[in-house]
Amino acid sequence: MRIAIDAMGGDHAPKVVVEGAIAAAKEWNDVHIILVGNQAAIESHMTEKPANITIRHAEEVIEADDEPVKAVRRKKDASMVVAGKLVREKEAEAMISAGNTGALMTTGLLVVGRIPGIERPALAPMLPTMDGSGVLALDLGANMDATPEQLLQYAIMGSIYRAKVHGIAKPRVGLLNVGTEAAKGNELTKAAYPLMEQAPIEFVGNIESSQVLKASCDVIVCDGFAGNIMLKTLEGAASAIFSALKQEFTKTLFSKLAAAILKPGLTKFRKKMDYTEHGAAPFLGLDGLVLKSHGSSDANAIYNAVRQARIALQKDLVGTISAEISRGKRDMES
Amino acid sequence: MRIAIDAMGGDHAPKVVVEGAIAAAKEWNDVHIILVGNQAAIESHMTEKPANITIRHAEEVIEADDEPVKAVRRKKDASMVVAGKLVREKEAEAMISAGNTGALMTTGLLVVGRIPGIERPALAPMLPTMDGSGVLALDLGANMDATPEQLLQYAIMGSIYRAKVHGIAKPRVGLLNVGTEAAKGNELTKAAYPLMEQAPIEFVGNIESSQVLKASCDVIVCDGFAGNIMLKTLEGAASAIFSALKQEFTKTLFSKLAAAILKPGLTKFRKKMDYTEHGAAPFLGLDGLVLKSHGSSDANAIYNAVRQARIALQKDLVGTISAEISRGKRDMES
Repeated sequence: MRIAIDAMGGDHAPKVVVEGAIAAAKEWNDVHIILVGNQAAIESHMTEKPANITIRHAEEVIEADDEPVKAVRRKKDASMVVAGKLVREKEAEAMISAGNTGALMTTGLLVVGRIPGIERPALAPMLPTMDGSGVLALDLGANMDATPEQLLQYAIMGSIYRAKVHGIAKPRVGLLNVGTEAAKGNELTKAAYPLMEQAPIEFVGNIESSQVLKASCDVIVCDGFAGNIMLKTLEGAASAIFSALKQEFTKTLFSKLAAAILKPGLTKFRKKMDYTEHGAAPFLGLDGLVLKSHGSSDANAIYNAVRQARIALQKDLVGTISAEISRGKRDMES
Repeated sequence: MRIAIDAMGGDHAPKVVVEGAIAAAKEWNDVHIILVGNQAAIESHMTEKPANITIRHAEEVIEADDEPVKAVRRKKDASMVVAGKLVREKEAEAMISAGNTGALMTTGLLVVGRIPGIERPALAPMLPTMDGSGVLALDLGANMDATPEQLLQYAIMGSIYRAKVHGIAKPRVGLLNVGTEAAKGNELTKAAYPLMEQAPIEFVGNIESSQVLKASCDVIVCDGFAGNIMLKTLEGAASAIFSALKQEFTKTLFSKLAAAILKPGLTKFRKKMDYTEHGAAPFLGLDGLVLKSHGSSDANAIYNAVRQARIALQKDLVGTISAEISRGKRDMES
């Protein structure tokens, strides 16, 4: 299987991307990696040259602060855009990028293209849960507004991803809402609820945002706006609480000693709560596999993203989503 | 000034409500309190009888698990509904209840009634911030969906409340959103942004939910759905993190000792993060003052709610909101 990697995307590119790619290429010889980006820059970090890595030169780079749509349209020879073209033209079955999220979503939509029947592709990162299992949340920012039918498609895609890539037999799908009863919510969630009930998924009903951390479902479905509010609140609360703890810990000599005893456990816990530790986020609904690695990815994160892509390709994630969506459309028409 | 208190509302009613009312009546002799509820039950807790407390018997009680609209419609002689009637008929200028939130919102809408020109009254609790100052958030659950014009009214009402009741000269009003740029957000926030810019408020732009805890504004405006997602995520994250800390603290003898040293500081901090500690929530936009005390209120919380009501009445909160909304309507028509 052929996986294109945007070698220039991310805070520590191209160094860590090349390192991660080399490690992955050595680990899995059924994978062929195409590193896309500035050839000289990539080669300068190629400490080894596994036979299953090739370089595809791309002249331009999309920067973190580039305006997404404009950048993808104008920088036609940017590493991210070229990687997208490789997927569209079936020269690669997957692409991975740690670059500008908005630009990657635009590349997905405009360059890779949607699966026929999918209205809106969705970005689906894993959110942390207290038990460490994590919950796939979608949509997290690809589309601010959604229709009930789009939420239904998110539910189906998320369920297939968890089943195929994470091996969960019957992924529990929840609808992010303000109460558990079916009649709760805004117009959107009230209309989406009955659609989910009839869908070929393990729908567990409405889930309040306070319950998401408790791993009460495997997939949580929401529009991009609500999802973003949830994610950013989570980040803000964790950051605020930990900084308050730090203040508490450094107040007196005693508290400093106490903190030293507790620190290892807290650091481990904080890491568990960090959603950037939970792997690359798939951009679901595209006619090809697109994975978004976090901007702060290190070589290990890139290596893990290749592992994720490899499983998704082995299990034919994109083909399964495509078949399920067509089947649903046929059922609705008949 | 006359304040009606639903003596039967809340987890510890009528005992703590009566106690709080007595304390308040003794403190402020310009206040007359009407305790509404079962006369015998109220009297059994009247350890003292200040002259500025009267009892108004009401036969029924709306329970915490009653369906709000049905309960308000059917239980016409419920303590909460009767308190609402006192406000509508100008026998009281304010009402306070620690009872069923949904029923109180229904009582506000159907019994007390809206200020002319207000499309949707909004529930506006204070959310905790790290510096302890708090931020008034509205709407938090009265209306799941909102229009841009309704968000504008929330902004104006919240701003007036913070100015009048909390004495903030120019309350900073933020719009809850997924990014700080004006063009960010969903259809709703993108349409609300320019309205807020032109409003007679100190609009500080879009605020991400991760920034709300940092007290970057005095009023945060959102639709009830997004607001609820934010609030519940905050609660869920705080509860999850503190329970993880507890686990960490009880692991070994050393960590137990360490925890004992840190505990007082952490307890204080946790209390600061508890939004139920931040007073009663006004239900803004009604033609009379309606305050919602938390269900778990103790006597002190009821006493503080009376203090809050007293300030709002002294500053003519309702009259000011009414005048500002009419002025805005006239400006738009001319």
